[in-house]
Amino acid sequence: MSTHPPALLADEPLVVVNLGVDEFVDSVRDAGGEATTLDWRPVGDGDARLAWSLAQLASDAQDPDSVGSRIDRANALAVERIIAAQPMLVDVALHARDVWPDLDRTLLHAGAPVAWDAMCGPMRGAMIGALLYERWADSAEAAEKMLRAGAIRLEQCHDRQAVGPMSGIISSSMPVFVVKNVAHGNVAYSNMSEGIGRVLRFGANGEDVIARLRWIETVLAPTLRAAVRGAGGIDLKAIQAQALLMGDEVHSRNAAATLQLLSAVTVALADAGVDAKAARESLRFIAGNSQFFLNLSMVASKATMDAAHGIDASSVVTAMARNGVTTAIRVSGLGSRWFEAPSDMPIGLYFTGFRKEDANADLGDSAICETAGFGGFSLAASPALVQLVGGSVAEAVAYSREMYDVTVARNPGMSLPALDFAGTPCGIDVRKVVDNGIRPVITTGIAHREAGVGQIGAGIVRAPMACFTQAVLALAERLGVQ
Amino acid sequence: MSTHPPALLADEPLVVVNLGVDEFVDSVRDAGGEATTLDWRPVGDGDARLAWSLAQLASDAQDPDSVGSRIDRANALAVERIIAAQPMLVDVALHARDVWPDLDRTLLHAGAPVAWDAMCGPMRGAMIGALLYERWADSAEAAEKMLRAGAIRLEQCHDRQAVGPMSGIISSSMPVFVVKNVAHGNVAYSNMSEGIGRVLRFGANGEDVIARLRWIETVLAPTLRAAVRGAGGIDLKAIQAQALLMGDEVHSRNAAATLQLLSAVTVALADAGVDAKAARESLRFIAGNSQFFLNLSMVASKATMDAAHGIDASSVVTAMARNGVTTAIRVSGLGSRWFEAPSDMPIGLYFTGFRKEDANADLGDSAICETAGFGGFSLAASPALVQLVGGSVAEAVAYSREMYDVTVARNPGMSLPALDFAGTPCGIDVRKVVDNGIRPVITTGIAHREAGVGQIGAGIVRAPMACFTQAVLALAERLGVQ
Repeated sequence: MSTHPPALLADEPLVVVNLGVDEFVDSVRDAGGEATTLDWRPVGDGDARLAWSLAQLASDAQDPDSVGSRIDRANALAVERIIAAQPMLVDVALHARDVWPDLDRTLLHAGAPVAWDAMCGPMRGAMIGALLYERWADSAEAAEKMLRAGAIRLEQCHDRQAVGPMSGIISSSMPVFVVKNVAHGNVAYSNMSEGIGRVLRFGANGEDVIARLRWIETVLAPTLRAAVRGAGGIDLKAIQAQALLMGDEVHSRNAAATLQLLSAVTVALADAGVDAKAARESLRFIAGNSQFFLNLSMVASKATMDAAHGIDASSVVTAMARNGVTTAIRVSGLGSRWFEAPSDMPIGLYFTGFRKEDANADLGDSAICETAGFGGFSLAASPALVQLVGGSVAEAVAYSREMYDVTVARNPGMSLPALDFAGTPCGIDVRKVVDNGIRPVITTGIAHREAGVGQIGAGIVRAPMACFTQAVLALAERLGVQ
Repeated sequence: MSTHPPALLADEPLVVVNLGVDEFVDSVRDAGGEATTLDWRPVGDGDARLAWSLAQLASDAQDPDSVGSRIDRANALAVERIIAAQPMLVDVALHARDVWPDLDRTLLHAGAPVAWDAMCGPMRGAMIGALLYERWADSAEAAEKMLRAGAIRLEQCHDRQAVGPMSGIISSSMPVFVVKNVAHGNVAYSNMSEGIGRVLRFGANGEDVIARLRWIETVLAPTLRAAVRGAGGIDLKAIQAQALLMGDEVHSRNAAATLQLLSAVTVALADAGVDAKAARESLRFIAGNSQFFLNLSMVASKATMDAAHGIDASSVVTAMARNGVTTAIRVSGLGSRWFEAPSDMPIGLYFTGFRKEDANADLGDSAICETAGFGGFSLAASPALVQLVGGSVAEAVAYSREMYDVTVARNPGMSLPALDFAGTPCGIDVRKVVDNGIRPVITTGIAHREAGVGQIGAGIVRAPMACFTQAVLALAERLGVQ
């Protein structure tokens, strides 16, 4: 800070430190002065209602009867449930309709509700593919016509306690993983990884894509069911925790987690007496797809976060999801309402032949991983991934450190080796996101914006601030401080 | 440094910086002065012959005809071969005698030659076990009598291009891995991991130990042979490189490497048509032993380092090995001569019920991993291991950084994520070890000093300096500078 007296009195050069609004700087410089601009913004970004709400909701250890203290207690319970969660892969349902008998002519999709007209290309491509797979349409044109006409009911995965990566389509005949959080008793579901390349979740829908979906339904799913049942369940939390020690953040890198799953499946299959050809094909498929565990990391995260949902007054985020147009969050104490804002574009590396103009906006339910403390929040665990997005190891560590500033606790069951085994950032508090002006960071795949192309890169993205400001205002309203 | 004039002239208090010899300090302090001791030692630790030899062997970029430049060129070739190595697991020999038909009544062991009378407890225990396993003796007492009487020929593993962890016993009926360095054409061998707990390599020799050895011979080895042959070989270098990105230093931690091996074996076995029960038992055995890959990391390192051996004038270390009494090294340009010195005691963590007084001195051929740049040299890759030895992540990184000061190059094929993907320290130069006074660091298991007990802990140890000073003197003699 300047120690000079006011310039008009001392007739010395102006030396000014400017907070926030840039417009003041020009006049200082025009007058021959020096100006340093600090990147400061008022709480709530100048929105008086938001700033007032934040102040009312703030933690106040001195006053246990304050609204802030009530929120803190609710949040403590929420993170207690996150930390105590024990997601186990307990079964594989051979068809989604076995779990949800009402799933005829219905598609589940990633993110918040979105109409066909507003929908992004890859999700449209995936929906068309799902209709072909289900044989509800016999051509892409017929499928598109049905979808445009509203002949297919669209629902969010999250409302069925399910999650799906990228477009996240789950249809009646697709097999789903069944994961039980045995600590809390709740159950969650996800579809299965199709591998890399041309895949439905990125919007591809050619004959190869449909044929692979049928193989997953008829070969992989029964084989994995036999393995899971034979093993008496597979402990997904243990795999996630081990994988953090082995270079995965269990969102965009699942190499170690997939190998651990393969080990568990291999040992279980050896006893299960399944068809040898099916076992061989299934093991080779998993061994050849280092992201196979992603869907399991997602559903484990979903089973974990659902246990923390519905706690009155809690400001902890229990879901972040993207439909390719908007990013949406749910908050423990605010029911099933989505707080939505337009999705950002991911920043990252593109496969040869593609560039950022080809990219779709951030997409998929996979940000449930970050919601549970993995992915971008655990980037310190995964230096190999930082190489992918062009950064240094120090940057990876910095992302995890930054996320401590938006979370309630550190998860003692999930350690980050590069931070001397500190627990992962756990329980995003919408108040902290807004108050500190720090948006949650997400590691993500990048889909082509047009239907039918598929994945074109991988990178990182941040959730839009507007999701969190809306949630803060809604919480203030609900708790009667507005 | 002090800016004071000499005390006798100025009559001011003495302020002294003392280099090296401590005895001067007392008289300064007695006279009321302050003394700071710098931990400085003359090159060669005061040994004039050694210091002179080092000076003659030193690198001198200005003079390409100097002995130092000749050594540098030889060392460049040595590290070129280390970096170019491509160790592949190409076969499993069902019995060591299939590789070495002259192996009757012979035991191979770790480290340099050692007579029965001088031998450490765990190696004695393992040798007794091997005689029981081979049915060359029908009781431990009879076996000991035969060994004491010299009825069994003892040889070093290294002289058969082989390596074995801890006591490193290889006998006629044991199966061995066959690893070919396809870049150079040489072949190396090792025995197979017995798992953890009571095992021969740590000196245990009870009925359970012998029974497991028979199972390895009759079930595991044929199964792995079928898998390796079915796969057309398994690329060990690729597994080592990937494992460094996944938290292993592939000596004392091989969790990720073992999972990768399991993945390769699983996929190959699915096609190999082996007996289902044997496949099941073998896969479960590997999946249940996160150190299973150690023996393969060792033999891959041996196949790598043997390619760098025998280069005239090279001062690169091509083997470090411990027989439980001495640590011994071989140097590329110095033939098959071992340079030996008494082994240090490892520093580390002990299993419940044991303490450092129970420990045997450093033991085993596994320091071949460090010789090739893994283990202690790659400790930066393995923060989980540093937790085991009680250190911080910064300490792990510091060990790897320190090892750059004793090596010729960085291996671009083996990256350390925590050092922003710098290559591993590659090619120990005996000149640098002595000149910098830095002893190579080794991660290691700790054996009980008595025969028959087994592993009691894990930790780190450094190779004795005397191995390297002897090698420097021998190199000087060989190159005619003495």
